[in-house]
Amino acid sequence: MAAPRAHVWTLEGGLTLAFERRPGPGFAFDLRVPVGSAHDPVGREGSAGVLEEWLYKGAGGRDARGFQDALDDLGLRRSGGVGPEATRFGVSGLGADLPAALGLVADLLRRPALPPGELPVLTDLARQDLEGLEDSPPDLLAVEARRLAFPRPPVSPFAGYAHPASGTPEGLSRLTVENLHTFFTRYGTRGSVLGVVADAEPGEVRSLVERAFAGWGPGEAGEVPADFRPGLRAHVPHGEAEQTHLSVTAPGVSPGSPDWLAWQVALTALSGGSASRLFHAVREERGLAYSVSASPVLLGGRGFLSAYAGSTPERAPETLEVLLAELARLPRGLTDAEFGRARAGLAASVVFGAESLRARAGGLTRDLAVFGRVRPVAELRASLAALTLDRVNAFLAGYDPAPAATVVTLGPGEAA
Amino acid sequence: MAAPRAHVWTLEGGLTLAFERRPGPGFAFDLRVPVGSAHDPVGREGSAGVLEEWLYKGAGGRDARGFQDALDDLGLRRSGGVGPEATRFGVSGLGADLPAALGLVADLLRRPALPPGELPVLTDLARQDLEGLEDSPPDLLAVEARRLAFPRPPVSPFAGYAHPASGTPEGLSRLTVENLHTFFTRYGTRGSVLGVVADAEPGEVRSLVERAFAGWGPGEAGEVPADFRPGLRAHVPHGEAEQTHLSVTAPGVSPGSPDWLAWQVALTALSGGSASRLFHAVREERGLAYSVSASPVLLGGRGFLSAYAGSTPERAPETLEVLLAELARLPRGLTDAEFGRARAGLAASVVFGAESLRARAGGLTRDLAVFGRVRPVAELRASLAALTLDRVNAFLAGYDPAPAATVVTLGPGEAA
Repeated sequence: MAAPRAHVWTLEGGLTLAFERRPGPGFAFDLRVPVGSAHDPVGREGSAGVLEEWLYKGAGGRDARGFQDALDDLGLRRSGGVGPEATRFGVSGLGADLPAALGLVADLLRRPALPPGELPVLTDLARQDLEGLEDSPPDLLAVEARRLAFPRPPVSPFAGYAHPASGTPEGLSRLTVENLHTFFTRYGTRGSVLGVVADAEPGEVRSLVERAFAGWGPGEAGEVPADFRPGLRAHVPHGEAEQTHLSVTAPGVSPGSPDWLAWQVALTALSGGSASRLFHAVREERGLAYSVSASPVLLGGRGFLSAYAGSTPERAPETLEVLLAELARLPRGLTDAEFGRARAGLAASVVFGAESLRARAGGLTRDLAVFGRVRPVAELRASLAALTLDRVNAFLAGYDPAPAATVVTLGPGEAA
Repeated sequence: MAAPRAHVWTLEGGLTLAFERRPGPGFAFDLRVPVGSAHDPVGREGSAGVLEEWLYKGAGGRDARGFQDALDDLGLRRSGGVGPEATRFGVSGLGADLPAALGLVADLLRRPALPPGELPVLTDLARQDLEGLEDSPPDLLAVEARRLAFPRPPVSPFAGYAHPASGTPEGLSRLTVENLHTFFTRYGTRGSVLGVVADAEPGEVRSLVERAFAGWGPGEAGEVPADFRPGLRAHVPHGEAEQTHLSVTAPGVSPGSPDWLAWQVALTALSGGSASRLFHAVREERGLAYSVSASPVLLGGRGFLSAYAGSTPERAPETLEVLLAELARLPRGLTDAEFGRARAGLAASVVFGAESLRARAGGLTRDLAVFGRVRPVAELRASLAALTLDRVNAFLAGYDPAPAATVVTLGPGEAA
């Protein structure tokens, strides 16, 4: 099979469409609207999360049940959700139903019913979701770490990264039909990207999308910068937690940087499977924690390293010490064997990550949003194959995330 | 793309190989050896489960770490595990590494190290797994329901379906290096099936597999019949459970039956998504249970309907009543809308279920084991398209699972 290349168009009106043709009976698409929980207005945290649920409560003349039945009648499956920077609407199904599926999502965004009676139900569900965080210390820690590491800039109109998609109890209590309607005017073509994978003529798909979204206004998204607070140490007391949960956030590499790929390889050597440094040092050698991992996080166009470990309260200090020591020895570089394993693991995950229609549609959208272009899978594999240990170690020699790391722990004990 | 057709060969020695060519850079395979926990000898429950873990502790001259590194060096990913009727060994990775991956799995099965020192560690892990069941009432209920609905036939040498893959505490305590070596002699080509999906010449794949598994003995599997005990009512007291968990097992349709597809459609109408009968009757209309579902289960070559609901102790009796009422009204047939939705949902899941290499390799193997042949995806879709509501309702008129249903509940309260 010739390596597929994506077609990318900016449609009249401003929506960006990426299409990759793939033989087979199915289709998938993913629409990313650049309005997320970070765009929630200050004091109305939860706007984006509640609005997304509300959109599904009927559209295009159908009520909520009618809209769900329209999806079910065609065997269509929904995906998506609200993240800090964007809200995603995905659908997959059988090829002949692509026009109908695009029509349904266009209805959702352009002709939603937004029934006022549903709003109290939805804010109540969001409140329950927030209360549920208390029962899940790792999730609660993730929220607290985000809040402490990325505090809201004092003058921004946006609530930023300091709260989860479900909002805050105060923010939810201030949501009204009117202010959510106003928030909804942010949604539009500006910055929105649609990734489509199907077995169809590119021109045909373009026309379909143009027709479905004709007349969609530009909206108003706006970027929310991620102001990282380095070097913080904080403990969040949580009486019911039996474990101590640790979160480490540290500077990383931005997607546009020439070091991006070298950083990915280094992170895989640090935390990719049973031969990785963290798994070995923390779990296999010392038995300090039942789970430990590190991964890249993108916020406000920048990359960060985010690590997590779950330990006992007694072993937590040593776990943190070992974790930070592993970050501190990154500048000394990888061994040849580590480099080979990390590169092989990444190469396989590039291929298998693009395998399913749904994942590839999401990949197209993510590439456009994060890298400003679609990176063909074959190009990614070639770049990995061309990468050398010297190149990675030259990057690592100047990459020292440990001193700026912000550490947040959650578990028994007093606030620190 | 022309619909791919699988090549199927029975190799010299007896192993069955199914290969489907698929363009692209990745491969996946799935080897199914027809020895599972149901084959555990009476009194040595846990044999199959512990043996599978033991096999990964080194093979072909490599120790456990060396074997894992050999996988990681190539970016290979393992899948598989022990079920009641079979043990599966799966690997996926990049095309060029298919020969090496086949060699590693062949080593595992033909030249395992089986280091005696690891055995106590593995039986201890299995014991922990059994103890962990106590913390997960739905899993514990599944085990108890299996034990009660499919009791061990009194004269069988096989322990059968009455225990989980991790065995029983007594069974684990009787496992020895010697009796596990004896159990391992069951593994072999007889009844074993290997599904491979890759972009390679069929003849080449056949030769690769022949070479890798040359000389593998026939082994000795044996079928374990599933003797269903209908009409049972039992309650398993579980003081720590806050909920009452319900399990219903009822007769179904066997894979070889001409009614198989009609049954699948009926089960999808009963329990496939938010428009399904169970979801609607139990959750949406009455708010009786937070989760309710029904699915087909295959045991000993026969099909059964297995339903589950989690409810409060107070609402459990009504939940059960509603659930059984839904089974009892199946003979009255589906509506046109239900039929359309169920068929559309199944058609989409047939396509998306065959999408990933790993899933398709597992599908090839499952088809060979369950249906005795590979069902092409296009054929399945055509059969679904040809199915009519009349055909489904004619089947349902004679399908009355409710009277023979066996019901097991787990939660607070005395044994019933």
